[in-house]
Amino acid sequence: MKCKRCATKATVQLRSHNTAFCKDCFIFFFQRNVERSIERERMFTRDERILVAVSGGKDSLALWDTLVALGHQTEGLYLGLGIGEYSSASQRAVEVYASAHDLKLTVVRLEEEEDGLGIPEAAFFTRRQPCAACGTFKRHHFDRAAHAGGFAVLATGHNLDDEAARLLGNVLHWQLPYLAKQHPVLQPTHEKFVRKVRPLYRTSEYESATYAFLRGIRYVVEECPNSHGATQLVYKEMLNRLEEKMPGAKLGFVTDFLRHAHPLFAATPDGPPLDCERCGMPAFGELCGYCRLVAEIIRRRTRAVAHS
Amino acid sequence: MKCKRCATKATVQLRSHNTAFCKDCFIFFFQRNVERSIERERMFTRDERILVAVSGGKDSLALWDTLVALGHQTEGLYLGLGIGEYSSASQRAVEVYASAHDLKLTVVRLEEEEDGLGIPEAAFFTRRQPCAACGTFKRHHFDRAAHAGGFAVLATGHNLDDEAARLLGNVLHWQLPYLAKQHPVLQPTHEKFVRKVRPLYRTSEYESATYAFLRGIRYVVEECPNSHGATQLVYKEMLNRLEEKMPGAKLGFVTDFLRHAHPLFAATPDGPPLDCERCGMPAFGELCGYCRLVAEIIRRRTRAVAHS
Repeated sequence: MKCKRCATKATVQLRSHNTAFCKDCFIFFFQRNVERSIERERMFTRDERILVAVSGGKDSLALWDTLVALGHQTEGLYLGLGIGEYSSASQRAVEVYASAHDLKLTVVRLEEEEDGLGIPEAAFFTRRQPCAACGTFKRHHFDRAAHAGGFAVLATGHNLDDEAARLLGNVLHWQLPYLAKQHPVLQPTHEKFVRKVRPLYRTSEYESATYAFLRGIRYVVEECPNSHGATQLVYKEMLNRLEEKMPGAKLGFVTDFLRHAHPLFAATPDGPPLDCERCGMPAFGELCGYCRLVAEIIRRRTRAVAHS
Repeated sequence: MKCKRCATKATVQLRSHNTAFCKDCFIFFFQRNVERSIERERMFTRDERILVAVSGGKDSLALWDTLVALGHQTEGLYLGLGIGEYSSASQRAVEVYASAHDLKLTVVRLEEEEDGLGIPEAAFFTRRQPCAACGTFKRHHFDRAAHAGGFAVLATGHNLDDEAARLLGNVLHWQLPYLAKQHPVLQPTHEKFVRKVRPLYRTSEYESATYAFLRGIRYVVEECPNSHGATQLVYKEMLNRLEEKMPGAKLGFVTDFLRHAHPLFAATPDGPPLDCERCGMPAFGELCGYCRLVAEIIRRRTRAVAHS
């Protein structure tokens, strides 16, 4: 098979796009696709400072690499979740990438924050799925770091497979408020929030893994040991079977949703009207969702210690 | 396992409802479920005459049997599609059922209608998928027979699996006009149309097959040799895998759609404003969709004969 762009021998085949590329042309194709997503959805301009949330996995490092290649002003943010060897390996991967490319990186480690709570502890004491607590922690620390650093935009590495699985889950349960918020660009609803964007929403997991590999990025291959929850994996498996039979189906599912259906679901969301009494970030009540969760964990931990 | 209703030995297990029944209690459960669907969606009353479209398969015969048991005024309509031995066997099954229960049945055979066109011929000459032509033919003859017979309602045997697969297909492509029309009750948009209802929309394929078996109904087990199109089967397979992991998921998908999302898609559809010049049924142009299709078939067949 030949590269569709330069006619040399192709090394990457993309069934969903019915095409194939050599190494250099695939890298060009990937970066141009991301650039088009950014422009089409008006995610940000070259004048804006972007905080890239990097986990050490293929997607977020491929995203950071692409944004740098496209000439954007970026800094990295790594959030240490306190999940044993998985977290240590992830932090090393991010630090190696940042220093090799001379990029600014901020590291926030949950264990070293004022509450000293890692994800395993939070999940244990609240008897929640680790992924649910993790989402709340990530949102809080990402928001806070983006606001504190004066960034215009927070970018995350969610890829097409993530977006399609999330959309399928929201549709199978017809979660209207979640469908309203499913968009690659979320405008801030409070002055302490920044714009949140997902520039990889049209590129597949396979494409970002291939990109990271071909660019020589050393990323953490292991998935989080808490996994992404059995449910999300069921949806991904369903969509993988669909994609096998109908290449391009995932991309159509997500882009047709954004074009045709999202406007029906989207109402202008009300932003949080208050400031959290504990952390100062936006809140719907006296405390923000994160501080309510932290308070619950501390209460339960104290009780557990008292009973032990 | 014991019957959840009478505590004798259970013979039917329903994972999607997390329950099990003996033979008699399952039959009661099935009929009551259909009755609740009819009442909840205000499909029809006992004062209205119902035309039941019966194909000879498990679903439509289970539907007819249930409507009779619930005391509704029904007549059957069998449409012979001219698909060889499959159609002959189907007609026999319907006739055997009707005569055993002393029910009135009308048989319309496409080969004997003025156009003399069976489905295989129609598909061949138009180079369409047989299922696409079949849908147009069925809708036309069902509409015409319901109108001619002065029925208030036309009932078809679409089950939960059919509805869920159709919904998934419409959602994967975000077909907004089809999503607007996806409802177990369609009110007539023209005086020559009647109300169309799907009383089995909340009962699964497995349930109607079990019901037909336990009631001793001899139905045609074979699927139509033209199959229901590979696409529909892909969606059914995806949903079967989901249901395996999350029993009840199909039912939730369809009923949550109707409750929460359908109102967002549903606009009042405009009915066809004209009468077809050829058959007199409602039409958007000079001819209705059916007569346009028939004209195309005849034109192509004439040309083929002239060239042979």
